[in-house]
Amino acid sequence: MPLIPPGPLSLVPFVSVQHMMQLVNATGVERMLADLAAYIEEDFRRWDRFDKTPRVASHSSDGVIELMPTSDGDIYAFKYVNGHPKNTRAGRQTVTAFGVLSDVATGYPLLLTEMTLLTALRTAATSAVAAKYLAPAGSRVMAIIGNGAQCEFQALAFKAICGIDTVRLYDIDPTATAKALQNLRGSGLTVVPCASAEQAVEGSQVVTTCTADKQYATILTDNMVGAGIHLNAIGGDCPGKTELHRDILLRSVIFVEYPPQTRIEGEIQQLPEDYPVAELWQVVAGMAAGRTDRRQTTLFDSVGFAIEDFSALRYVHDRIKETADYTPLDLLADPDEPRDLYGMLLRAAA
Amino acid sequence: MPLIPPGPLSLVPFVSVQHMMQLVNATGVERMLADLAAYIEEDFRRWDRFDKTPRVASHSSDGVIELMPTSDGDIYAFKYVNGHPKNTRAGRQTVTAFGVLSDVATGYPLLLTEMTLLTALRTAATSAVAAKYLAPAGSRVMAIIGNGAQCEFQALAFKAICGIDTVRLYDIDPTATAKALQNLRGSGLTVVPCASAEQAVEGSQVVTTCTADKQYATILTDNMVGAGIHLNAIGGDCPGKTELHRDILLRSVIFVEYPPQTRIEGEIQQLPEDYPVAELWQVVAGMAAGRTDRRQTTLFDSVGFAIEDFSALRYVHDRIKETADYTPLDLLADPDEPRDLYGMLLRAAA
Repeated sequence: MPLIPPGPLSLVPFVSVQHMMQLVNATGVERMLADLAAYIEEDFRRWDRFDKTPRVASHSSDGVIELMPTSDGDIYAFKYVNGHPKNTRAGRQTVTAFGVLSDVATGYPLLLTEMTLLTALRTAATSAVAAKYLAPAGSRVMAIIGNGAQCEFQALAFKAICGIDTVRLYDIDPTATAKALQNLRGSGLTVVPCASAEQAVEGSQVVTTCTADKQYATILTDNMVGAGIHLNAIGGDCPGKTELHRDILLRSVIFVEYPPQTRIEGEIQQLPEDYPVAELWQVVAGMAAGRTDRRQTTLFDSVGFAIEDFSALRYVHDRIKETADYTPLDLLADPDEPRDLYGMLLRAAA
Repeated sequence: MPLIPPGPLSLVPFVSVQHMMQLVNATGVERMLADLAAYIEEDFRRWDRFDKTPRVASHSSDGVIELMPTSDGDIYAFKYVNGHPKNTRAGRQTVTAFGVLSDVATGYPLLLTEMTLLTALRTAATSAVAAKYLAPAGSRVMAIIGNGAQCEFQALAFKAICGIDTVRLYDIDPTATAKALQNLRGSGLTVVPCASAEQAVEGSQVVTTCTADKQYATILTDNMVGAGIHLNAIGGDCPGKTELHRDILLRSVIFVEYPPQTRIEGEIQQLPEDYPVAELWQVVAGMAAGRTDRRQTTLFDSVGFAIEDFSALRYVHDRIKETADYTPLDLLADPDEPRDLYGMLLRAAA
């Protein structure tokens, strides 16, 4: 039992998984994806204001634990995220995450939130932002290869933000495809389960790959990718993990989030270090061209960057001002007199 | 209201400030400091097993926000900590912190805890571990210059671990000294308030400096430090912030935690990059000499290192197995089927 009630400065709003589900469901998934996309675009347009660093990764044989910090000078944010492909065998998530938003002026946290769901949402929103600028005009059909936890979020983000009305699903495990098919019933999307990656790609203007194995894989070979396609490669996101055959990269115009990180983690780890890539934020900010030709193959080599999490945290922090979707958490010591930390302890014992 | 109760895999033990105060007071401050010192020594002896990196710092004009990760291959830990000297003017702490311990095999967090109190405790415990190996034999009297939030923890750690029975206190603000004097009443220590740093140092075998200004300061000048003293400098802990005159450094044997970090942040930022320093863990592990002569001036140039936080988190994680000093927090999404994250959201809406 608390002996002394926590002071107001000690309390940090905490958004649990339950709170996040309430926020998403009350908002509507598609509206929330569109909102997140708007926040991400807003932050991409002021990219230069951010402190940027490749994430700080701790690798092990089973996976990786990463810290992803960034700051715009007023607000600081970081995300903790793991990636452990074998986790699903024991009923755990491959990727779980939580994050914190803080006030740069005081260093005090303003928000602690689950980010497993939020990362799934922001990843899909970022993919859709990229496709908005890179997919061929009038794209309606998207293939999704890899029907795991990210699949439905991708489908709904592309519906809400890019006008996709049909998704063609393929996974090496048919139960994953069946799960996505079931979940997307009633979404307004036409969902076509496919027997192979080749079949899924047929007739698609956008191809999303989101598989989870931590190894070099070739989900797409060169002959599967026709001219004029936009490729959205989000599963290759750590050293040694890629999804696309190198030949596809060589004939694509490649867009990335933050080159120093993507060269280590993305599809382009297969290419020389100085291979030319464009930065997505420059396209969003109108400083670089996106797709310039209907016959171009464009590739968004997405690995996930800290600024996208910053945007997502900023959005949640703004939203919970209006909702009750949080609990105050007694996270920070708040003695009556700031230098009297020990006295606080003494008084709690009395 | 939660619509679906959180699953067991979603729950992470959370140790609030209230819980931490209960744990410390139930354990006893001195016993907890001694326990923490034992955990720190244990981890220092296996230093080579840890992933080590200088902390990831985000500096602003008002302060710094840092992430301090490390891992021993089985357990991963990180601390979030800020340092904002002006915070006390608005009733906030200069330093607040929280931390997370995780399972490397799954990437899942095992513990989230406040670390403002825990950092104060582990900092004092680390200082006392250093002094155990470096202070002159039979030391009884310690000067503490800077009587802020860290002061009493230092006094009690040196009492519990090094046999100090008298502390001589000085602060430029006499109300800080009065606060410490009041708090240490009944501790069994003889506490002597002093009118100057010079006076505090008189007759002391150990001198601790723990001031908070974020600037180059000279708390101790060369003529104040006699031969045979052990200096415990813990306030100089970021670029541009030091406490000791350079001449003191030049005639001291210098011990540090992790040279790549201390050269950026510690007192030795005043010295050439290749100036010889000894590593404390090697002394603890019996691989390097500590104090070798009664007339030596020894200096522990402490900035705080991630492994000390790892030890503290490991200790709290072990202890809460026996106590009820935590709350389960719904931090991680735990769908019935790991790939069915979106389905979990759908079912919560139903």
